[in-house]
Amino acid sequence: MDFELSPKAKELQQKLRNFMDEYVYPAEDVYTEQMAKAGDPHFHPPILEDLKAQAKTLGLWNLFLPHKTEWTEGLSNLDYAPLAEITGMSHLAPEALNCSAPDTGNMEILTMFGTDEQKERWLRPLLMGEIRSCFSMTEPAVASSDASNIECSISRDGDYYVINGRKWWSSGAGSPLCKVAIVMGKTDPDASPYLQQSMILVPLDTPGVKILRDLKVFGYSSREGHGEIEYDNVRVPASNLLGTQGSGFAIAQSRLGPGRIHHCMRSIGAAEKALELMCKRVTKRVAFNKTLAEQGVVQTWIADSRIEIDQARLLTFYAAWLMDTVGNKGARTEIAAIKVVAPNVALRVIDRAIQAFGGAGVSEDTPLAQMYAGQRTLRLADGPDEVHRMTIARREIRKYLD
Amino acid sequence: MDFELSPKAKELQQKLRNFMDEYVYPAEDVYTEQMAKAGDPHFHPPILEDLKAQAKTLGLWNLFLPHKTEWTEGLSNLDYAPLAEITGMSHLAPEALNCSAPDTGNMEILTMFGTDEQKERWLRPLLMGEIRSCFSMTEPAVASSDASNIECSISRDGDYYVINGRKWWSSGAGSPLCKVAIVMGKTDPDASPYLQQSMILVPLDTPGVKILRDLKVFGYSSREGHGEIEYDNVRVPASNLLGTQGSGFAIAQSRLGPGRIHHCMRSIGAAEKALELMCKRVTKRVAFNKTLAEQGVVQTWIADSRIEIDQARLLTFYAAWLMDTVGNKGARTEIAAIKVVAPNVALRVIDRAIQAFGGAGVSEDTPLAQMYAGQRTLRLADGPDEVHRMTIARREIRKYLD
Amino acid sequence: MDFELSPKAKELQQKLRNFMDEYVYPAEDVYTEQMAKAGDPHFHPPILEDLKAQAKTLGLWNLFLPHKTEWTEGLSNLDYAPLAEITGMSHLAPEALNCSAPDTGNMEILTMFGTDEQKERWLRPLLMGEIRSCFSMTEPAVASSDASNIECSISRDGDYYVINGRKWWSSGAGSPLCKVAIVMGKTDPDASPYLQQSMILVPLDTPGVKILRDLKVFGYSSREGHGEIEYDNVRVPASNLLGTQGSGFAIAQSRLGPGRIHHCMRSIGAAEKALELMCKRVTKRVAFNKTLAEQGVVQTWIADSRIEIDQARLLTFYAAWLMDTVGNKGARTEIAAIKVVAPNVALRVIDRAIQAFGGAGVSEDTPLAQMYAGQRTLRLADGPDEVHRMTIARREIRKYLD
Amino acid sequence: MDFELSPKAKELQQKLRNFMDEYVYPAEDVYTEQMAKAGDPHFHPPILEDLKAQAKTLGLWNLFLPHKTEWTEGLSNLDYAPLAEITGMSHLAPEALNCSAPDTGNMEILTMFGTDEQKERWLRPLLMGEIRSCFSMTEPAVASSDASNIECSISRDGDYYVINGRKWWSSGAGSPLCKVAIVMGKTDPDASPYLQQSMILVPLDTPGVKILRDLKVFGYSSREGHGEIEYDNVRVPASNLLGTQGSGFAIAQSRLGPGRIHHCMRSIGAAEKALELMCKRVTKRVAFNKTLAEQGVVQTWIADSRIEIDQARLLTFYAAWLMDTVGNKGARTEIAAIKVVAPNVALRVIDRAIQAFGGAGVSEDTPLAQMYAGQRTLRLADGPDEVHRMTIARREIRKYLD
Repeated sequence: MDFELSPKAKELQQKLRNFMDEYVYPAEDVYTEQMAKAGDPHFHPPILEDLKAQAKTLGLWNLFLPHKTEWTEGLSNLDYAPLAEITGMSHLAPEALNCSAPDTGNMEILTMFGTDEQKERWLRPLLMGEIRSCFSMTEPAVASSDASNIECSISRDGDYYVINGRKWWSSGAGSPLCKVAIVMGKTDPDASPYLQQSMILVPLDTPGVKILRDLKVFGYSSREGHGEIEYDNVRVPASNLLGTQGSGFAIAQSRLGPGRIHHCMRSIGAAEKALELMCKRVTKRVAFNKTLAEQGVVQTWIADSRIEIDQARLLTFYAAWLMDTVGNKGARTEIAAIKVVAPNVALRVIDRAIQAFGGAGVSEDTPLAQMYAGQRTLRLADGPDEVHRMTIARREIRKYLD
Repeated sequence: MDFELSPKAKELQQKLRNFMDEYVYPAEDVYTEQMAKAGDPHFHPPILEDLKAQAKTLGLWNLFLPHKTEWTEGLSNLDYAPLAEITGMSHLAPEALNCSAPDTGNMEILTMFGTDEQKERWLRPLLMGEIRSCFSMTEPAVASSDASNIECSISRDGDYYVINGRKWWSSGAGSPLCKVAIVMGKTDPDASPYLQQSMILVPLDTPGVKILRDLKVFGYSSREGHGEIEYDNVRVPASNLLGTQGSGFAIAQSRLGPGRIHHCMRSIGAAEKALELMCKRVTKRVAFNKTLAEQGVVQTWIADSRIEIDQARLLTFYAAWLMDTVGNKGARTEIAAIKVVAPNVALRVIDRAIQAFGGAGVSEDTPLAQMYAGQRTLRLADGPDEVHRMTIARREIRKYLD
Repeated sequence: MDFELSPKAKELQQKLRNFMDEYVYPAEDVYTEQMAKAGDPHFHPPILEDLKAQAKTLGLWNLFLPHKTEWTEGLSNLDYAPLAEITGMSHLAPEALNCSAPDTGNMEILTMFGTDEQKERWLRPLLMGEIRSCFSMTEPAVASSDASNIECSISRDGDYYVINGRKWWSSGAGSPLCKVAIVMGKTDPDASPYLQQSMILVPLDTPGVKILRDLKVFGYSSREGHGEIEYDNVRVPASNLLGTQGSGFAIAQSRLGPGRIHHCMRSIGAAEKALELMCKRVTKRVAFNKTLAEQGVVQTWIADSRIEIDQARLLTFYAAWLMDTVGNKGARTEIAAIKVVAPNVALRVIDRAIQAFGGAGVSEDTPLAQMYAGQRTLRLADGPDEVHRMTIARREIRKYLD
Repeated sequence: MDFELSPKAKELQQKLRNFMDEYVYPAEDVYTEQMAKAGDPHFHPPILEDLKAQAKTLGLWNLFLPHKTEWTEGLSNLDYAPLAEITGMSHLAPEALNCSAPDTGNMEILTMFGTDEQKERWLRPLLMGEIRSCFSMTEPAVASSDASNIECSISRDGDYYVINGRKWWSSGAGSPLCKVAIVMGKTDPDASPYLQQSMILVPLDTPGVKILRDLKVFGYSSREGHGEIEYDNVRVPASNLLGTQGSGFAIAQSRLGPGRIHHCMRSIGAAEKALELMCKRVTKRVAFNKTLAEQGVVQTWIADSRIEIDQARLLTFYAAWLMDTVGNKGARTEIAAIKVVAPNVALRVIDRAIQAFGGAGVSEDTPLAQMYAGQRTLRLADGPDEVHRMTIARREIRKYLD
């Protein structure tokens, strides 16, 4: 056993830290200014393109993709994990590195299951950072934590598929760069449960695609948007199907593993950021003749945060290592585990930081409240905690069934 | 011991429930529409005046005030508590009944410590619902959880006091009806700690009063606003001083008790609302072939919510009863206790409800996320949890010191 | 609403406190000595008879029984509750007052369902404190949390019933004074689930009754014993049946309410005792140049303990009041709630006290570890927490089902 | 980064698992029988010597010692950690492998700081498993969590030191094989705090050494005993001093690191054992028409247990790796962290298992209650949780102090 990062990971980590310090953190104020001036919550500010160009030049681009392709070298999940953590410390970093959800997952399944034509049309520009994409799976009308509930229909009609359904939390749909949705729906409603669904590529300008509204999270609008989309008799060529008909559930499963590592490491990065903010704050505020840093209760918050973060990180590294060595399937318990652990740890740490900051913590004077809102959604997105716990428990119990 | 509400409380409770059903809940959509049309987050919508007029007619007006005055009959804290709970179920109810913070606390200290002139000028129109007020105590530069940290200066200058300082979380300052601030600051910086401060009435149109900005909470702007206010050489007549010079700390203390009952009962009302929404939801969503209501984990959420809410309510009733029978001082442990308990219970219940709702829970499709944000501030406002725990512990330990 | 105890309860409370101070607490050392000298863990020490005699003289006898009988005046659940709390502070108190489980529950169902003959033979000597009894319901072979699992058979055979089954946690069976068991079993295995069972009185000297062993709790043997009992073709007259055949489940239900008040109030008494011990300890130990009492973390323990205890007590009082006013059935949610709350609160408070005491806390130098063990069993006895939460949740959800 | 165990660790792990299955687990019943027959709680049963002989033969002996000595090869902390976990699954394993506390820590400091004479007289027979030892640091009269409180005096008197003081929790002192105590006390009470104390070797048969009693833990006596020992004018040669005069605190610090890895890994082993017992139980008990394994709440217990155990194990491995690579000092945060995490995780898992077992869980029918008692002491031994959190917090905050 060896907890040292690989030389490659260490080199990239250092390079990324420098990039954050020199470019990303200073860009945050520029971003705020450009967004304010634009007055459009979905404006794509030039500073982002500057950051993307710089990241490309530095070789900090598409690091998320474990696969070697025509356009990418591939980086193992374990080598990417510590980089993803760092990107969790600024809301600008993931897009700057072309490593932001849901594009990452979409690019990965295009890499794995896309036809050459699909790759050329969608994967290449995504990897280049020219366009963005969204992922339409969750539906407002049903408990989507149970994927078999999905009602959207994708019906074959000659050389076309016709899509009808309503989706929401199609994150990314609000960006002006978003050009395509990957939609999950039922092609074979009478097949056995895990073979009923397929995924299909839907250009957003196809007639019948209506972005109904953009969902807020707590009181926050996101630039990229969380779209509620109606697919009303949307007709796309049959060649837009991703993989084979009926493989939607399987593709969804294989999409999940790496994405969870990314999300979890970013959550851990957010937690580290909150802990750093808290530590800096408490050394400077005095109450009852002592700095907050000297108060036992505050010390408990800090110690528990350190303990919880370090455990969550190690577990995520371990899950990444398992994925690299035995594959996503062999890491299923651990992937489910980090999906429960990381956002919950981040929420606890951020909440303590809010408490340490007082009123500033819930306001726009710190990033904490918005970070809290973001992490809170992660206890729901990609399956609520409860479903992941069920997965873990069943696998544990199975060991002892005769 | 008798847990039956008094006949008066029961009658008012029934009347208030009817008012909520007939007027308040239906007004929520009207409100949203009027606010949207106005396009100004601080607009005072006509529907509120309609509700106020109706509440006055029905005798549901100024119920919060325990004191008999020229304009009010007075209602005990214990009789008001169950009414405050009901007002926690709609964001429109407190103002509709002229029972909303910070006016309630301000009206109470004006009743107790105001001169006849102060009462005529400010208390009367507040009680009539003609104007609103704000309370300027917390400061951005210091840990205001320790009131001795406050830095705002109130200096005597002939027949005037001159106020210099920066305050924030002056809630209510954003309303166009807000006409006066009660400001706390140091008149006697060299006196013993609890005699350094005074409170003074400052008309908001006094030169030197600058509302710098309006603070958001978790992305949400509030209609009434949380103001950051600079008081820059603000000069008001010496007769604007509330009570005697140096009595600021004592007035702040006596302001706290009833206000905490109100806040806590509204938190409990919010928790009941969240529990109701959760229960209704889970009977209708199906996952893994069972309604959520049939799942053991969801049942645990509901049971724990019921248990925690009922305990918090009883403790708040008990604190109110103690205040009515032995006074605020004799109820100090209990008032501190409910201040810790009620918002934390509400947060837990709301968080469970969010989880039960999935994506809808964090979005604007339910009131849950905004309720969460509101309750979260209450773990900080009027002293963070930690200060109240310290109060309770010291009083407990004191029993055993020789 | 009025939180004042009734004059009767206050008078008894004062009398009982005096009795504890003058007789019970001083008797604890005598007890330890008499038990040590006897060398028999089930010895019945003379000091207990002294205490019983004194309690009888003082009118502190059989206070638990809400019913007026030939031998008792009856005391409401609400008036008894604060007395039960006090008895939770010494392990000698409940038996000294003839208010200890399982006799209390047994006496109550004999009062309600016993024939005159059964009352004369068993209830009278139990009320006199001449004999003790046990209750045989739980079985080692099945999950007894679901009462329908019970397998013990009670078969009619002419004028007799024949009992076959194995029971455990028949508490009280180890006492030399224990003369009778109330046994629950199936008389009508083919009836509908709630009508299959009956309760029957079995003198412990009946042939076929074998006390197999005495269960320990953690490392502690109890004087009264937790018996595992085999009933092997035990034959008793048909007149020993309690109530009607098939009424076992109903009798069990009506046995539960008051007993839960008793248990919960004693748990609260234990928690108060632990809090008192902790407060006394922390003012006297110094670490890192401060008494433990001055350390923020310890203050949090004390404050949370005070808050949790007070809430649990109020909820239990409320449940008792409901039982007195609307009956056990109307108080079902609240009875289930306190059954979850009280032992869990006691465990948390005791655990904090153990931590404050360090090594002394887990050893025999404080009563804390044994108190912990006792309270831990209460999360299992009379139904585990999980079953009570299920009860509460179902009743809550039912409000919203159409 | 690589989570694979080293080939050496894997080989030993397999060998140890075989030894547990073939020898240790089957020996548990023999042990119980031999102890019962002996009737002496401190009897040293022959089965233990059988196991020790077998372990020696198999090369499973003294694996805990990281140092290469005349008698041992040395094994890294990281290679030993997974073995220590396995020994946590049976109370017989640590002694069978000569890897049980407090001998391990004592052997380590003798290895590091002992003179050749001390090594020959005490270390050799300890390593051979011929004798055992105890460690006398904690005192009943003071809060020993703050080591500067220690009052025992060790005074130089010519060629002797004279020891006066009272110690408790001198674990191991009850064993008939225990021949020596390492005692910590003040040689230089006027020196600066960290230089006041020394450690000294005291043969247990020295006049003035009185084992006053054996402390129980939650009702359980341990075979090896937790001794309260009076050192009354105990005179030993000056050559018995361990290291230099005044180095007691430093030796105590260097004793802690490896011991904490051992304790924590055994706690994790205990937690795994409890999880295994729980999983096996819940597949076999039925309540409300489902096995417990199918109930959502039970699944949550199992999932959370798996998640918490895996995180605790990874953190302990990481701490061990740090100790091996950068030394105990560089691993101080992590060593403090696992000291908090591991016993708390074990307690939570065991408590859930107890709940799943019902009455059997608190009784002697499962090892759970005794495991709980053992783990509970570990939140106090070697410093309570609170002290370790303080250490972690201070180191975290220090990063941000200018």
